Amino acid sequence: MSERAFTLGELADLVGGEVQGDAGMRLRGVASLDGAGPEHIAFFNHAWYADDFLRTRAGAVIVEPRSAKKHPGRAYLVAPNASLAFARVSRAFHPVERPEPSRAAEAFVHPSAQVDPSARLEPFAYVGAGAKIGPRTVLAPHSFVGEGAQVGADCRVGAGVKILHGCVVGDRVILQPGAVLGGDGFGFALDLEEGQHLKVPQVGIVIVEDDVEIGANSCVDRATMGATRIGRGTKIDNLVQVGHNVTVGAMSILCGQVGLAGSCKIGDGAVLGGQSGVANHLRIGDGAKIAAQSGLGHDVPDGEIWAGTPAQPHRKWLRNQQVASELHALHAELRRLRAEIDSLKK
Amino acid sequence: MSERAFTLGELADLVGGEVQGDAGMRLRGVASLDGAGPEHIAFFNHAWYADDFLRTRAGAVIVEPRSAKKHPGRAYLVAPNASLAFARVSRAFHPVERPEPSRAAEAFVHPSAQVDPSARLEPFAYVGAGAKIGPRTVLAPHSFVGEGAQVGADCRVGAGVKILHGCVVGDRVILQPGAVLGGDGFGFALDLEEGQHLKVPQVGIVIVEDDVEIGANSCVDRATMGATRIGRGTKIDNLVQVGHNVTVGAMSILCGQVGLAGSCKIGDGAVLGGQSGVANHLRIGDGAKIAAQSGLGHDVPDGEIWAGTPAQPHRKWLRNQQVASELHALHAELRRLRAEIDSLKK
Amino acid sequence: MSERAFTLGELADLVGGEVQGDAGMRLRGVASLDGAGPEHIAFFNHAWYADDFLRTRAGAVIVEPRSAKKHPGRAYLVAPNASLAFARVSRAFHPVERPEPSRAAEAFVHPSAQVDPSARLEPFAYVGAGAKIGPRTVLAPHSFVGEGAQVGADCRVGAGVKILHGCVVGDRVILQPGAVLGGDGFGFALDLEEGQHLKVPQVGIVIVEDDVEIGANSCVDRATMGATRIGRGTKIDNLVQVGHNVTVGAMSILCGQVGLAGSCKIGDGAVLGGQSGVANHLRIGDGAKIAAQSGLGHDVPDGEIWAGTPAQPHRKWLRNQQVASELHALHAELRRLRAEIDSLKK
Repeated sequence: MSERAFTLGELADLVGGEVQGDAGMRLRGVASLDGAGPEHIAFFNHAWYADDFLRTRAGAVIVEPRSAKKHPGRAYLVAPNASLAFARVSRAFHPVERPEPSRAAEAFVHPSAQVDPSARLEPFAYVGAGAKIGPRTVLAPHSFVGEGAQVGADCRVGAGVKILHGCVVGDRVILQPGAVLGGDGFGFALDLEEGQHLKVPQVGIVIVEDDVEIGANSCVDRATMGATRIGRGTKIDNLVQVGHNVTVGAMSILCGQVGLAGSCKIGDGAVLGGQSGVANHLRIGDGAKIAAQSGLGHDVPDGEIWAGTPAQPHRKWLRNQQVASELHALHAELRRLRAEIDSLKK
Repeated sequence: MSERAFTLGELADLVGGEVQGDAGMRLRGVASLDGAGPEHIAFFNHAWYADDFLRTRAGAVIVEPRSAKKHPGRAYLVAPNASLAFARVSRAFHPVERPEPSRAAEAFVHPSAQVDPSARLEPFAYVGAGAKIGPRTVLAPHSFVGEGAQVGADCRVGAGVKILHGCVVGDRVILQPGAVLGGDGFGFALDLEEGQHLKVPQVGIVIVEDDVEIGANSCVDRATMGATRIGRGTKIDNLVQVGHNVTVGAMSILCGQVGLAGSCKIGDGAVLGGQSGVANHLRIGDGAKIAAQSGLGHDVPDGEIWAGTPAQPHRKWLRNQQVASELHALHAELRRLRAEIDSLKK
Repeated sequence: MSERAFTLGELADLVGGEVQGDAGMRLRGVASLDGAGPEHIAFFNHAWYADDFLRTRAGAVIVEPRSAKKHPGRAYLVAPNASLAFARVSRAFHPVERPEPSRAAEAFVHPSAQVDPSARLEPFAYVGAGAKIGPRTVLAPHSFVGEGAQVGADCRVGAGVKILHGCVVGDRVILQPGAVLGGDGFGFALDLEEGQHLKVPQVGIVIVEDDVEIGANSCVDRATMGATRIGRGTKIDNLVQVGHNVTVGAMSILCGQVGLAGSCKIGDGAVLGGQSGVANHLRIGDGAKIAAQSGLGHDVPDGEIWAGTPAQPHRKWLRNQQVASELHALHAELRRLRAEIDSLKK
């Protein structure tokens, strides 16, 4: 998996953790608890994996302090946040490679495009007129950068990604295969005289700030006017729909199949669970958390957790849900009360 | 944004509106209320934008009569339907350009395909055997038109769009990037003897009528037999799934991430909100409106509004929803009644 | 539609059914009841199509025994399972063609890739370093097979499909256009010190076993470590999201727009209805059935049917739902009881 090797002590230094066991143990890669051998370091931070933790053959395990005492005699890397420590260790074994610069003969680059010489253009990549591709950015096969679009430095533009005309992508952005940035927003005016939905020209763009990741086959529509914007460090999963003129703040998380209707505003550090949807023109506050499959019909204040369709504050939803899940029992009780009252009245 | 200019009076004539203010004012483009300068015309038709309306620096604003008196001293283009007037004004500034005919050296065209000389084929476009491409139609990079497929006149086939074998696309159709027309319908017969889901050949096609738009990465499956059909002027947003043998009528609207299961029939002028789903073989009537995230398990009569999962007529859903959103209070009241009855019985 | 012809008797032999009528009748293709003429064989197995069954002009109809007596004087192919018999008959008319081997001049094949000479590579197909393509497999235009990926025998890799580095696809797998196998799993660790979501390297792969079909624009993410796995004979519809480290068993069915969050396990022979979602780390048992749009927040035991959000066993859901759909009536009754009790107390 990796050709690198580190001692357990080196890895502990790397993540600011402590060694319990043999600091000189050489480790050659990361693995899951159940897939690891003595040459691997794994991690444990959730009861889901308690059995795997018990049985693992991993050389060492990254754990949080409360778990370090569970199976004495093993080698541990003890860190306050095992997930984060694991991410850092895994990145040490799998550093982001600097791509070999190249421009495949089978790529198409318009003569007026500006492609940094350190960029890598793979076969069947397309770069349109006036487009700019920054240093060390990779355009995978069948990727498309339209007229006048700009892609910054150190980006990975996946296979079949489409960045349409005029859109702007920052630095260190990762676009998974098939993502579409800058398709037309869904804007029509009903024209009864002509019997048609008259298309409103979508003349804005999409701006994707630095350090964003966008998932496979996700779509971010261009603005009607102005820009649809994805803020710095935000991560978007697969098959997510972001409508025109949406603004997503910095450091937010949109899970798979989320849908954001036009002009809604998502704050900084918000988390939207899978398949949740937000109606147009709403504001989801900074740090808000939205449960999976929720349907948002109202603004959500900063820091609140909401759930359900139509969504409610989570605590209220929970109380309602406890009743809803036994609604037939409530109904039965009501019928009993009816019978008793009828009998009392007699 | 645009190199055109119109006077306010010219724009008013164009949309059948009236000028309030200086009809000779020259305008050079459209902009949103908050993005506009004195050279722009913006529009206002919803309280969402009341603040922007107050503060806008736009040279002129398209408004409906009730809003024209709000901020006297400004220049207005007063029209009965501001959205429609804006669409027309924006289209005047951004007319659909007639594409430069071309056939890129990097495109692939099968010798038996018939491509109109006025069409435009961009690099890496693929046109299969016997396919037909109509006048002035544009095939963007990485688009695919399969064997025997037909695309009419004045279409825009976006980057990476796939139109599979035998499918038929009318005139003035816009296909956003990554849309797939004619993937196999999802049809299998459980074969217990062989222990498999036996694939049912999907030998029908997809027919997309004139003036349809289909969103990025949306999928319309080919029919098992016969045709899956999208009617004239219907507009489909991104990431929508249309199953095999579905019929969508004319002038309907399917918002983002809608899912239509096999063989359902959507009428003319229907509107399906985002993330709503329709079970197979249902009929959604002409002019019906379906709320976002609804799950349709029954037919919807013409002109009705339905909501919820399972969906109900909207008025009924609203009444139920008012109770559901305070279900814990209902439960508490029920417990009080129980206590009071128990006490009365004693 | 097809150039083949069979007698009704031959078709009956093929599917193990019985002829009612003229066994020598020659049939030249399949059609739907309403699209068929005298040269076609159609099938009928559901009341949805009772009218079409009455009016059909089909030469013969495949029916189950209970329907064979309905319209005497017609020709029938009577089979215990009409859907399965129809699938077999249709496959006889539309056998899977053995592809003509070829390697288009416009395809890109890395010198270190191993492509079986009987495979078919269409224009703009891409095969990366060290990748393997098996016998008789077809790579459609714009398909992508990344470094070290393996595709088995007799596969159909649709237009614009992406199979990323290291992923492994078995034999007879069908990948509809635009499907993405092996995009990065959605894994980040919140790094408060650096103010970022630190990307966890996704160094696992996707394994797709034999006889799987994956729908258009569906996404199966690579594992963080180890493999995301789709089991033998499982069929996945369009726009489905399968998160990292998910395991789907054999012979399961995932309908359109289903979402499976990371690390969940779907058993063998399970059926997940359209737009349903499964939270991370859950187990959906063998043979379980999940209603459309359900949201799973708990494990589902083998063989159970669940529905709703949050999902419940179907029978419980039904009982609750009956009350929920008339909740306003329950509320009214509660108010009546309150009034009556208040009056009794006086």
